[in-house]
Amino acid sequence: MSPVSLSRRRLLAGAAGAVGIAVLQRVALTQIEVPPDPTKVPGRPLSALGQRSPFERPRRLVSGVNQGSSLTPLQDLCGIVTPSDLHYERHHAGVPAIDPHRYKLLIHGMVERPTVFDLAALRRFPAVSRLYFLECSGNGAAAYRGPRPDLTPQIIDGLTSTSEWTGVPLATLFREVGVKPGAKWFLAEGEDAAVMSRSIPVEKAWDDALIAYGQNGEPLRPEQGYPARLLVPGWEGSANVKWIRRIELADRPFMTREETAKYTDPLPNGTARMFSFVMDAKSIITSPAYPATLPERGWWEISGLAWSGRGRVTRVDVSTDAGKTWAAAELQEPVLPKCHTRFRLPWNWDGREAMLMSRAVDETGYLQPTLAELRKVRGPGAPYHFNNIRAWRVRGDGAVHWGLEA
Amino acid sequence: MSPVSLSRRRLLAGAAGAVGIAVLQRVALTQIEVPPDPTKVPGRPLSALGQRSPFERPRRLVSGVNQGSSLTPLQDLCGIVTPSDLHYERHHAGVPAIDPHRYKLLIHGMVERPTVFDLAALRRFPAVSRLYFLECSGNGAAAYRGPRPDLTPQIIDGLTSTSEWTGVPLATLFREVGVKPGAKWFLAEGEDAAVMSRSIPVEKAWDDALIAYGQNGEPLRPEQGYPARLLVPGWEGSANVKWIRRIELADRPFMTREETAKYTDPLPNGTARMFSFVMDAKSIITSPAYPATLPERGWWEISGLAWSGRGRVTRVDVSTDAGKTWAAAELQEPVLPKCHTRFRLPWNWDGREAMLMSRAVDETGYLQPTLAELRKVRGPGAPYHFNNIRAWRVRGDGAVHWGLEA
Repeated sequence: MSPVSLSRRRLLAGAAGAVGIAVLQRVALTQIEVPPDPTKVPGRPLSALGQRSPFERPRRLVSGVNQGSSLTPLQDLCGIVTPSDLHYERHHAGVPAIDPHRYKLLIHGMVERPTVFDLAALRRFPAVSRLYFLECSGNGAAAYRGPRPDLTPQIIDGLTSTSEWTGVPLATLFREVGVKPGAKWFLAEGEDAAVMSRSIPVEKAWDDALIAYGQNGEPLRPEQGYPARLLVPGWEGSANVKWIRRIELADRPFMTREETAKYTDPLPNGTARMFSFVMDAKSIITSPAYPATLPERGWWEISGLAWSGRGRVTRVDVSTDAGKTWAAAELQEPVLPKCHTRFRLPWNWDGREAMLMSRAVDETGYLQPTLAELRKVRGPGAPYHFNNIRAWRVRGDGAVHWGLEA
Repeated sequence: MSPVSLSRRRLLAGAAGAVGIAVLQRVALTQIEVPPDPTKVPGRPLSALGQRSPFERPRRLVSGVNQGSSLTPLQDLCGIVTPSDLHYERHHAGVPAIDPHRYKLLIHGMVERPTVFDLAALRRFPAVSRLYFLECSGNGAAAYRGPRPDLTPQIIDGLTSTSEWTGVPLATLFREVGVKPGAKWFLAEGEDAAVMSRSIPVEKAWDDALIAYGQNGEPLRPEQGYPARLLVPGWEGSANVKWIRRIELADRPFMTREETAKYTDPLPNGTARMFSFVMDAKSIITSPAYPATLPERGWWEISGLAWSGRGRVTRVDVSTDAGKTWAAAELQEPVLPKCHTRFRLPWNWDGREAMLMSRAVDETGYLQPTLAELRKVRGPGAPYHFNNIRAWRVRGDGAVHWGLEA
């Protein structure tokens, strides 16, 4: 086996993720050993646990240390499932180390039978598995508040990911403990050093909330709440309390730090939106997108993700002329409620400057708004919920850059 | 942070995968540091790439070195998606190291325009992503040919896994090269040291075959054919040629080593089944299953996987009395064609000996056969395609063991 030294350019050109477009990524120069003819050399042995090809180095983009976020590299991914080790993170005090043998979930307050469940007890109940997106309510902030031409899908919208979640319906546990009729809200409290706490309307438990212990077929990853988390499908990430240790039923919300100092949306008229849980319909074209360059005119596939916290995406329109005309993209089946939906549209690029946009429609009829529309109602300083239409400018030389200004 | 030394028993009791059942696994004794109260210690920082909890150590079970297989730990998994690093392997000469920048796929033979596609060319075509199972035709051999009470779901049926695959329809490439009307078969040839080669009827390309380059959102794993493989959904694993480098169109099958010396099924009457591509409907209960023990009587969820190479699973029946009576299990939505389907049935165990069985029905009306039925037509020495009903014996003390004899 003779080592083949790769130039940076060659390495980068091929490691372009899901698309056939030259992409510049910041990866280290590497010498990777490959035989000139792989059929003449015995291959690597079988292994107990697989590894990525050394030519592929997907990375979450990290900002902050314990308090901060890490972003899913949307422009490098295909399909709708996010590999668990690339699922976005948003932590208020880092990732706690929790011993699953000592894990306990207390449900108390306005209930007939306050109960402590250990992990075995949670897993014994009838389970469900569903593909759902999760999204931080701050997703999109970089483009809304500090647009620059060199923003990537990862930087703009990398705070959303999709997994197959497995767990016990919270409704099952609420029936088990006997939630009292007067209970209208519950507190969900995490076991991290921030003791992350949110108030959730009890209706969400009767609808589709889960206590999830499985992610993409295996136990939750530590960054996603190992060994168990609250999942409130379609609702802002912070309400999906990780490392959940306590649920308290009450007749009113708890007004925690995380719904007063944060996760409340001041409006231009001086009032504020509180408990703005639902993530409205959104979409982003992930290819072509910065840092991609179209090497030549001709047919290219425009592809991206759309999702809605209110149910299924029913349509995604794509424009290549800055929104003057729109064409319906193909939606990848199965289209699942509260889940990323991959859309695709073939595009014959004539070599002239173009502005690519996508807009999602969900099953409630809601249409993803323009930046101007959103800014009018939320103001330029809005802290959360940036679901305006995204745009990519394609230059005559094929370079693609973020297309919206502040 | 004070280290907590875990006894083997405690560690094992909690790392029971997806079920609340005590399971003995062979994992090393480990000292894992966890704080007594995780809320009093800053958590671990954000990370570019996630890791499993140190309490979770799923492993493929490996037999062979380069020539052999590694098995997905079905009893530890939930939902339907298999984590990519736990997808089963079956190699004839190990995992080749392939430079994606030098990767080429040649399509030639009975075509108008013999063509070489590099990876960028493949990725430029309109893509599709679909969840499909893959399964080695030898799956089930351990239980069919050498049953023992201590077989696990992993040992019995670990040669099947499900991923979301992304790629270009082979039909697109066949239109691109202009397949001639007389072409009836194509050779698919891999770039491994075995130069793995299979003949495939051309109809499969016009139906749903893919050249896949994506798996669970990211580029294929090396063990699953990086950078590109053939995917013939629902057909035996060996026909899904990995590391595909050449496709040759012809008017007859090529009669390769892998369809003469192997992957042909000798029958009791002296004839043989050749080109037995389709994986018939099959199911296995993954919980409770050896090495699980039911610690007490009462309600337990019976859960498992069903799949069919002919389309959707339409029903899974479960029996707790060795097949005397059957009840229809709940099928986890969405039920997708040629994909693992999770089934679940609550079971109130009365503490007496029981025999758990499952049988799948697919959209063609096909019913998974009993062991006796399959053995009658295929003989006791059948080398492949063991889709008989599986069974687990539950003893009065709660111990669960493989329930069928040779």
